[in-house]
Amino acid sequence: MGPPPFRTFPVRRLRDAGAEPRGDDLVVEEPLEIRVAGETVAITMRTPGDDRELALGFLFAEGLITSSDDVTSVAHCGRTGDEGRFNTLDVVPAPGLSLDVEALGAARRGTLTTASCGVCGRRSIDDLLARCKPLDPVIVPRAAVLRATEALGRTQSLFARTGGCHGAALIRFDGTHVATFEDVGRHNAVDKLVGSRLLAHALPLAGHVLAVSGRSSFEIVQKAVAAGIPAIASISAASSLAVDLAKRTGLVLAGFVRGEGMTLYTGDVSDD
Amino acid sequence: MGPPPFRTFPVRRLRDAGAEPRGDDLVVEEPLEIRVAGETVAITMRTPGDDRELALGFLFAEGLITSSDDVTSVAHCGRTGDEGRFNTLDVVPAPGLSLDVEALGAARRGTLTTASCGVCGRRSIDDLLARCKPLDPVIVPRAAVLRATEALGRTQSLFARTGGCHGAALIRFDGTHVATFEDVGRHNAVDKLVGSRLLAHALPLAGHVLAVSGRSSFEIVQKAVAAGIPAIASISAASSLAVDLAKRTGLVLAGFVRGEGMTLYTGDVSDD
Repeated sequence: MGPPPFRTFPVRRLRDAGAEPRGDDLVVEEPLEIRVAGETVAITMRTPGDDRELALGFLFAEGLITSSDDVTSVAHCGRTGDEGRFNTLDVVPAPGLSLDVEALGAARRGTLTTASCGVCGRRSIDDLLARCKPLDPVIVPRAAVLRATEALGRTQSLFARTGGCHGAALIRFDGTHVATFEDVGRHNAVDKLVGSRLLAHALPLAGHVLAVSGRSSFEIVQKAVAAGIPAIASISAASSLAVDLAKRTGLVLAGFVRGEGMTLYTGDVSDD
Repeated sequence: MGPPPFRTFPVRRLRDAGAEPRGDDLVVEEPLEIRVAGETVAITMRTPGDDRELALGFLFAEGLITSSDDVTSVAHCGRTGDEGRFNTLDVVPAPGLSLDVEALGAARRGTLTTASCGVCGRRSIDDLLARCKPLDPVIVPRAAVLRATEALGRTQSLFARTGGCHGAALIRFDGTHVATFEDVGRHNAVDKLVGSRLLAHALPLAGHVLAVSGRSSFEIVQKAVAAGIPAIASISAASSLAVDLAKRTGLVLAGFVRGEGMTLYTGDVSDD
């Protein structure tokens, strides 16, 4: 039995004046390292469960295998008790068959080589903290969090036209809107936003809230922490690993920020 | 001036008995190849515009640069008239500075080396068609497309619990629901679904509709075509490159499939 696809986190649901503590089920996000004959071909953030199907579907889509007969076995290679034991999967090709992993080209999702089996979320966080310092402790104005998603919604002009892209906006604690960027990719929208502030010599971004149109995943929180942004306001949910990373770095993470309500996963907001 | 972030496509909006032709603006999706001193470090599907910001934000998030002073220039390297002239960007480090591209590790998004500047959407489609054959011409029952998203919504149990994950479902033309898979990643949900059918020796999947909870992007259409699925029903919009690929491969692509309505981007549906 692998790990479950969700975990219950303590959160606070803020609405008008009140704050109601409760438990929310968050989708689990953990890295999966896919190996072919022992060689790492991809590391992808995924929800545990159906890992064999995921690995085979990925290799099939990329043209490395054409049927399940091309494969002798697909198995997790961690040892019992290892933290990341379900996060590395080795695909053994059928006898005499050598899969052309170089053909993966642009689809090859990772080149990281780990000595032993077992990537895991905790280690991903440790790696990040080794090069990004935690944020200074801060209490974020509740109004700034609410204004952040509101300003994002108001400034997503490409979304208004196409209905098919994501947005990222930057808002100061005083509610001033700094910039909005849009892209077909969630991560790209945030990269564009941070890149624009880098070009303006405006990093780190203390005293700002990042608003995102999609979910808060590990990578989104990672990009905010690297840029020194102390708070994220999302209109949707957060993943388990996003909350874990936000806790470790001191980032204030709010989800389902709509109207006057929000779900606070980590940190605190003030009413001033 | 680079290309615009949206393009107008002829579509048909189907509602009840009627079909209304019109033009919809779709978000443009094109590959961007990011190079550092001439070496490819990432190829990402993105919306054109703010490419310098995107490249610098990406390199910053990954820890390769810490300020814009680390960079001498960021410029598109295609020649005037080249189709993909705005799709390759070269980042030249500051004198004496060597960026540790190996440190990109798992974040390194592409290892594909192209001889000349200029990846582009058309070439991405050509590459795919070189290894995947086009689909057999088919008219998809309209009811199957409508039932597909309805069945997906009904079977997303992890989403119902967490509100934070994507889903992919497979439905036969007769409306039978085959399977639903969920994941924090859009692509992973489709990989799991196709992988499960691979394990069941059920590929190719002629006579099926793929329902997806998110947008239809190039990669989602690519995965469907590879698996021989002739139709995609999405609850949301499609990107330009998804429609281009669907046209070239004969895939029936429907978006905003909700209730009894849908937007038909390519192909046709029958009322029988």
